[in-house]
Amino acid sequence: MSRPIRHCAVIGGGVIGGGWAARFLLNGLDVTVFDPHPEAERRLREMVALAGRAMRKLVSAPLPPEGTLRFAGSLADAVAEADLIQESAPEVEGVKQRILAEIDRHARPDALVCSSTSGLLPTRISAEMTHPERFLVAHPFNPVYLLPLVELCGGERTAPVAIERAKDLFARIGMHPLHVKREIDGFIADRLLEALWREALWLVHDGVATVAEVDDAIRFGAGLRWAFMGTFQIYRLAGGEAGMRHFMAQFGPALKLPWTKLMDVPELTDDFLDVLAAQSDDQARDWGFRALEAKRDDCLIGIMRALKPQCFGAGNTLAAYEATLREAAPPVAAEPLRLYEGKVPSDWVDYNGHMNESRYLEIFGYATDALLARIGMDAAMLARGFSFYTVETHLRHLDEIRLGEGYVASTQIIAHDAKRIHLFHRLHHEDGRLLATAEQMMLHVDTGRHRACEAAVEVQSALAVLAAAHRGMAVPPEAGRGIGIK
Amino acid sequence: MSRPIRHCAVIGGGVIGGGWAARFLLNGLDVTVFDPHPEAERRLREMVALAGRAMRKLVSAPLPPEGTLRFAGSLADAVAEADLIQESAPEVEGVKQRILAEIDRHARPDALVCSSTSGLLPTRISAEMTHPERFLVAHPFNPVYLLPLVELCGGERTAPVAIERAKDLFARIGMHPLHVKREIDGFIADRLLEALWREALWLVHDGVATVAEVDDAIRFGAGLRWAFMGTFQIYRLAGGEAGMRHFMAQFGPALKLPWTKLMDVPELTDDFLDVLAAQSDDQARDWGFRALEAKRDDCLIGIMRALKPQCFGAGNTLAAYEATLREAAPPVAAEPLRLYEGKVPSDWVDYNGHMNESRYLEIFGYATDALLARIGMDAAMLARGFSFYTVETHLRHLDEIRLGEGYVASTQIIAHDAKRIHLFHRLHHEDGRLLATAEQMMLHVDTGRHRACEAAVEVQSALAVLAAAHRGMAVPPEAGRGIGIK
Repeated sequence: MSRPIRHCAVIGGGVIGGGWAARFLLNGLDVTVFDPHPEAERRLREMVALAGRAMRKLVSAPLPPEGTLRFAGSLADAVAEADLIQESAPEVEGVKQRILAEIDRHARPDALVCSSTSGLLPTRISAEMTHPERFLVAHPFNPVYLLPLVELCGGERTAPVAIERAKDLFARIGMHPLHVKREIDGFIADRLLEALWREALWLVHDGVATVAEVDDAIRFGAGLRWAFMGTFQIYRLAGGEAGMRHFMAQFGPALKLPWTKLMDVPELTDDFLDVLAAQSDDQARDWGFRALEAKRDDCLIGIMRALKPQCFGAGNTLAAYEATLREAAPPVAAEPLRLYEGKVPSDWVDYNGHMNESRYLEIFGYATDALLARIGMDAAMLARGFSFYTVETHLRHLDEIRLGEGYVASTQIIAHDAKRIHLFHRLHHEDGRLLATAEQMMLHVDTGRHRACEAAVEVQSALAVLAAAHRGMAVPPEAGRGIGIK
Repeated sequence: MSRPIRHCAVIGGGVIGGGWAARFLLNGLDVTVFDPHPEAERRLREMVALAGRAMRKLVSAPLPPEGTLRFAGSLADAVAEADLIQESAPEVEGVKQRILAEIDRHARPDALVCSSTSGLLPTRISAEMTHPERFLVAHPFNPVYLLPLVELCGGERTAPVAIERAKDLFARIGMHPLHVKREIDGFIADRLLEALWREALWLVHDGVATVAEVDDAIRFGAGLRWAFMGTFQIYRLAGGEAGMRHFMAQFGPALKLPWTKLMDVPELTDDFLDVLAAQSDDQARDWGFRALEAKRDDCLIGIMRALKPQCFGAGNTLAAYEATLREAAPPVAAEPLRLYEGKVPSDWVDYNGHMNESRYLEIFGYATDALLARIGMDAAMLARGFSFYTVETHLRHLDEIRLGEGYVASTQIIAHDAKRIHLFHRLHHEDGRLLATAEQMMLHVDTGRHRACEAAVEVQSALAVLAAAHRGMAVPPEAGRGIGIK
């Protein structure tokens, strides 16, 4: 079962299957899709383009070269050479059973077979498979290329090694695998989502609130908390210092109050569907579908990027993913030092549609950090109370870069002594244009005593090695100049 | 009823009452608290300190001078002079009835009376009030000083003008008032929260998942979406281009599947409470209460700040709040122009505990934006295809500023011509230290043709007025200099 996963078959290319295809491709895996719908290929290619734009905005690390995408004429052809087969067919038990049995007949014996079902039982949908030991549910959330969660749930005949193999794969492509250890309808996430969703339908059905009011009641309140702590951790805090037992003592009695319908669901009559559709149209009236979809993605990207410096929840998943990507990336070239590269994310763009001026300095800051790490100014040195501070910067803005475009920062060491480093950074566009330069003076500081001091001998010698390599390069003519009119 | 609200009485100073007190105080309102608990004053003062730190990290605009906080010896004393009375007593109908009746007897006739109840009916809890026309529910969410949502719900005898007055007040202090138009147990938000919460309790009760797994199933998946779009708008997008009707056609049948308990709640036996408490302790084991609380606040701050540039959901609420604060702030002093001030937020701090170097430039960028707005380079001018670009910056880092400390940026115009502005920014710490300077050359650009051109006559003359005022000031000796060792 330990063959590395390089080739994925995606069976069903709708919103979920298309999202899977995009995530696989953008992580360098080859994908073959089978979907008999006449519009499937057009829609899926659109989604891959959308996902590429979003993933490049999300991650600061270089993504691998995109995998190749192929459309197969039959299910048998699609799965024949695949290491992973991801089924995303309609949510009907009999349909899934038939498709999984067909996959089972044509797949390689060592292939991993996963179903995207939101809540059908793996034991039941795999009932007609001859090799159910390599089958499990891998339930993702829309948009699949951005949301980290994937619920993994095996059936009675699933081999534990299949679960481990899936965990490893999905973590490597930036996801958070959650192993659902007991087979239950709806797994964990959809039970919670369905409870909220059914209650929301009642509120609209009974005329208590419109769909927009229900959404506002979530997104301006508890929804903001759910994004990073879920529900138990948040309630623990609401209980004050005494923790969960105190919270339950205080709010347990409210569980007896008639605060939810907690019963059957409203019948989906034509009248009720009319109300739902009309209110939903009204809520989305200022938005085209693509614009609203892009806004959803940009908000998700902003939230996950905001959680990264907090080292919390989905921010940790993103940081771990970026570390994986950086490890897998080819080593940077030699002279000048290529120290940082990336694509311009959506929150870096100003009202002119260009990257904001302060982001140039932020990028050069990352390049400086990478240089300092290289000469041994690491966490241990910081803990010992030493650091390099930037004392002066001369930044020149020469050209523009826009949303989603790639850049690379490279750094030349102009001069150095025991306490100082004189640097010259260049920022190039992926198309080769020089976008900006930054000349910087770094000062080595004793952070406890707040004064300059000589760097440690090992730091000075690591710096000297790099500086020696740069000695033969011409000093940029702009270095050392001042600013003025005329 | 139109007396402006300056003085608030907070009845009950727990997690919710304390959060209200903090939000009121930080918005410059005076607060008198009544809570007979012996620990109430200590706890509330701690919460106000925590909230102050959080609110200053959240908003980029200057908060007004903090209101005064007083503890009253009796309810009658607390409410006597108040314009707004906010009741946050335990969630028991009889208790609320008695307290609201007592408030009613002692309050000014033109005072607004609000209850923080999470779901009790306003008509019932106000049954013993003589003046129920000025009473309504104003239901906030924890932490009250950060989360924007407040549900407003009147009873049968509530005057419409009371609702309007509350809407206006809560919007001015940075909240998103949601008018719940039909009186219903649990209002809108808590019906949704309770449905999810009761289902979550079942999952733990039945041993399907631990509290940490339930939280992970939310925060790595749907929780990230709920933070900005709620549930209907997200599902609309999942339905693809065909909208809500298509989504219901596709997923309506799943409503018949047994994917939630949707029935009575688990009984809170000692055994079940032991399981809950033990799992919750385990989930929080690496965190002290205060650390976890601060992490919750920092994540919320990060998310709301990330949504602001997206102009979406809670990001809009924050932007509107900041605009209100800026309007209410006293006018900036004359020479040099004080163009931007604020406090250092948590996501601006580097591994040394200092404000990151690129944030200095970001602040100077805001000062430049403010200057450009002042000389008429507004949205209309941008739409016409003209802008000033920064072509060169010489930044000097002179001193440090830390998390939560205040700064003010001021700007001197050194020189200008028809196409260029030569600026000198200074960044001062609130304690008076000079932190950094930035010398910048701005170039007026025809953004369509990507080339420099003369600024519009009205822009040139507005600039000339400011520059004339700066002509008498000394040119900073650092202006025009270059960087170098020796």
